Amino acid sequence: MLVSYQTLRARPADAQRQAIRLGEYQSHTAGLGKGCLQANVVITPAAYALDFMRFCQRNPKPCPLIGVSDTGNPDMFTLGADIDIRTDIPAYNIYRYGELADTVPDIRAIWNDDLVAFALGCSFTFEHALLEAGIDVWHISNNSTVPMYRTSIFTVPAGPFRGGSVVSMRMIPSERVDEAVAISSRFPLAHGSPVHIGDPAAIDIADLSRPDWGDPVPMPVTHTPVFWACGVTPQAIIRNAKLPICITHKPGTMLLTEVPDDADVPLFQKS
Amino acid sequence: MLVSYQTLRARPADAQRQAIRLGEYQSHTAGLGKGCLQANVVITPAAYALDFMRFCQRNPKPCPLIGVSDTGNPDMFTLGADIDIRTDIPAYNIYRYGELADTVPDIRAIWNDDLVAFALGCSFTFEHALLEAGIDVWHISNNSTVPMYRTSIFTVPAGPFRGGSVVSMRMIPSERVDEAVAISSRFPLAHGSPVHIGDPAAIDIADLSRPDWGDPVPMPVTHTPVFWACGVTPQAIIRNAKLPICITHKPGTMLLTEVPDDADVPLFQKS
Repeated sequence: MLVSYQTLRARPADAQRQAIRLGEYQSHTAGLGKGCLQANVVITPAAYALDFMRFCQRNPKPCPLIGVSDTGNPDMFTLGADIDIRTDIPAYNIYRYGELADTVPDIRAIWNDDLVAFALGCSFTFEHALLEAGIDVWHISNNSTVPMYRTSIFTVPAGPFRGGSVVSMRMIPSERVDEAVAISSRFPLAHGSPVHIGDPAAIDIADLSRPDWGDPVPMPVTHTPVFWACGVTPQAIIRNAKLPICITHKPGTMLLTEVPDDADVPLFQKS
Repeated sequence: MLVSYQTLRARPADAQRQAIRLGEYQSHTAGLGKGCLQANVVITPAAYALDFMRFCQRNPKPCPLIGVSDTGNPDMFTLGADIDIRTDIPAYNIYRYGELADTVPDIRAIWNDDLVAFALGCSFTFEHALLEAGIDVWHISNNSTVPMYRTSIFTVPAGPFRGGSVVSMRMIPSERVDEAVAISSRFPLAHGSPVHIGDPAAIDIADLSRPDWGDPVPMPVTHTPVFWACGVTPQAIIRNAKLPICITHKPGTMLLTEVPDDADVPLFQKS
């Protein structure tokens, strides 16, 4: 039996995680897990893990690495007391040879001893800070998923991983753009400062009203589009890399960690 | 023909790097390469590289990863226009099965297609900022190497890599400790804020006057010992890990990169 976003959001973070684990919630996580890092997730066979980790190190804005599992171990112990990467994401995308093959609520059936899971910081984290500063974030207020776009922004390649960066976009009141930049720059583990401000054509986005992932948003003339590097970048990159199997979170539905979002290092500390 | 520290320090950074590459300078690099990140270096066989990279991700204070080579490629292209990891460090330590086997001015003879080089941020970077704030750094003023100590400070293990963190120590005028903390916390790629202040016994250092690496310093009663996580930590860790071969910089003699030390991401950008 599925619970709604509004119902889940009213619960404490522990209960939110539990509902996701039990498969009772399979939708987006914007605004959930307040006060803790949320994570994009990429799972690869061990043979590709070193190159993927290099890719993250070389591209820290789209891929701020906040956790890596031991090979074959689904317990991401550096991110929380009890995080099972096989069940604790609302929805998973399974890619085979670069193509989306399936979307499932858990991956217990296909997890195996050869897989390595990577957690990457997520822009939801700094959105809390924008909201606290009184800057409205439309997709949160309106229960939708942030719009995301493929771009021509260069990434530094590593092994088979190469291609343009994906960005997420928020319409910011034009007079508050500087403030939004300053706020987000305080969260380097959550993509940090924007990678582009203004004209979408400059980064090869043809039509802002047609995002590649997520939902379109209103674009009032009083606002400026601001673009942040996005943890969905690996999902564009693995299309090119054509791994035999690669599992990710479904864009918008993230892993809720137990690492405070103002932690100076992304490590869960037992209290 | 070797050049002295004072001679080298008077040269521009490019010329400093060139002298090191040619084997003309084999000593410590404190105060050199001004304005750019310096790096601790660890080189492992590819079979250990994923675990070592996990170790860095899980222990970002002692091991802030700022660059990783491709397997077998000595050109660390993300750290500069022309950095050859086989020649560009003043002196290298070669460890076999955890024991220091040799110290050499270059590793051209033993580099091979199976090696991976890791660059970790270095406290020399924030020392520039301390000096600029008018906080004297004794070992720089006195042409010696910062004192470093093994401690019982926990690291999060990864594969064979486990053990206590190594720290570097600076005597700070007691009334300026808070300021030194604030300054260093601005450099997360250079170990960030201190891991301990005051009583050395609390982190199992028996005798401050006998560092495990580097040189002892005067300890006036007006000053407080302040301890930062240190990039020599891997050199203590690999004793336990007993890799068949592992190559590091000789403590105190670092890689001079071309990445500005105030860069928000550790990537060389062609100008």
